[in-house]
Amino acid sequence: MTQLTLIIGNKNYSSWSLRPWLLMKQFNLEFAEISISLYTPESRELLQKYSPSGQVPVLLHNNLKVWDSLAICEYLAETFTDIPLWTPDKAARALSRSISAEMHSGFQALRQNMPMNCRKKYPGRGFALGVQKDIDRITTIWQECRQKYGAGGKFLFGDFTIPDAMFAPVVLRFLTYGVQLNDIAQEYANAILSLPTVQNWITAAHNETAVISKYEF
Amino acid sequence: MTQLTLIIGNKNYSSWSLRPWLLMKQFNLEFAEISISLYTPESRELLQKYSPSGQVPVLLHNNLKVWDSLAICEYLAETFTDIPLWTPDKAARALSRSISAEMHSGFQALRQNMPMNCRKKYPGRGFALGVQKDIDRITTIWQECRQKYGAGGKFLFGDFTIPDAMFAPVVLRFLTYGVQLNDIAQEYANAILSLPTVQNWITAAHNETAVISKYEF
Ligand SMILES: N[C@@H](CCC(=O)N[C@@H](CS)C(=O)NCC(=O)O)C(=O)O
Ligand SMILES: N[C@@H](CCC(=O)N[C@@H](CS)C(=O)NCC(=O)O)C(=O)O
Repeated sequence: MTQLTLIIGNKNYSSWSLRPWLLMKQFNLEFAEISISLYTPESRELLQKYSPSGQVPVLLHNNLKVWDSLAICEYLAETFTDIPLWTPDKAARALSRSISAEMHSGFQALRQNMPMNCRKKYPGRGFALGVQKDIDRITTIWQECRQKYGAGGKFLFGDFTIPDAMFAPVVLRFLTYGVQLNDIAQEYANAILSLPTVQNWITAAHNETAVISKYEF
Repeated sequence: MTQLTLIIGNKNYSSWSLRPWLLMKQFNLEFAEISISLYTPESRELLQKYSPSGQVPVLLHNNLKVWDSLAICEYLAETFTDIPLWTPDKAARALSRSISAEMHSGFQALRQNMPMNCRKKYPGRGFALGVQKDIDRITTIWQECRQKYGAGGKFLFGDFTIPDAMFAPVVLRFLTYGVQLNDIAQEYANAILSLPTVQNWITAAHNETAVISKYEF
């Protein structure tokens, strides 16, 4: 049995950490969890110890360190080939990769103005310049995937796969900032929110006591 | 023979377009090139026609559209399995994916303050807050890859692979803004700059006449 360890940040705030954590939980890949409370006097040293980029998440596996949430997803997919982390259909997988990489490098306005904060509700806040455009693009992506490939289940490509892990943090942002969604998008958001794994993450976020003031209004 | 078409932006400015273009050229994957002059009255419509995200690059292949530079690289790697687009060693490939994804979503300060502009030399400009930190992290990445896996060639993992395509635009930025590099980093930058494919891109950039004023000082 291979040993996997995932280094993550505060569950309340660390949107990038949620992605591989959720993916591994959804696919029952067992892993040890090391949590670093970010932006504290101790975190710098811990990040230096575990993370070449100085950021979380980082996956430890067989003496390898793999960092960056998207790289961790690809690494898991090529390592555990018997598990459908990407959807099996080639055309659907091409779309999966396109939207996952688009999510990975884009949506700066949304990221900056609606930081993830699982414990809080700030309805109506964060709608700075460019944010609504990001929201619209995301819901367009969700609709297209659901309509083209979603028929077999409740997720973007039917069953839960990597793109769902990539977009799950956005679902939590939308919840915090009370973003109004059309029916298809809201149905998808509900599918993510009703996952026991996601509820488990949110509960853990509520149980954390650390506050990172730059992510609070 | 499969037909590949790559939609790109202005060679002078479009750093994301350079990545898959260079990768395909280096591996002799033949493709048709469609170039869109960005931020013109016509570009909006053309982008809407070709690109679901409204951005370039986009790859067309067998009725599929694949967009976002990193997704295009992964798509090509899984499609043309007989070509070593990723390095064959698993540990080296895990590092390749980590640094490629880190590049893809990070380095905002560098990106914003040192926009790619192949035709120009602006030595000393662009060193805003956070830029030197980005430069240092990039040269650390290059050194680590060169030292651990570079022995077989001049590139990050010996032979040219996807991470070199991901970092090539940064090499051009460093040239434009006269960024001082240590010996190992400069040697690597020179290896990229001396590729005929890269020289071909730069020449084409010089032959373009369109000017995008927001990327000029
Ligand atoms: N592209 C990276 C981004 C990771 C990232 O920004 N992580 C944040 C927390 S969510 C972090 O580690 N911040 C601590 C720091 O920068 O000191 C990924 O996808 O993993
Ligand atoms: N994450 C995307 C970014 C693509 C991108 O930002 N492209 C720019 C040109 S380099 C673009 O199309 N800009 C035109 C626009 O946004 O209207 C990728 O890697 O392909």
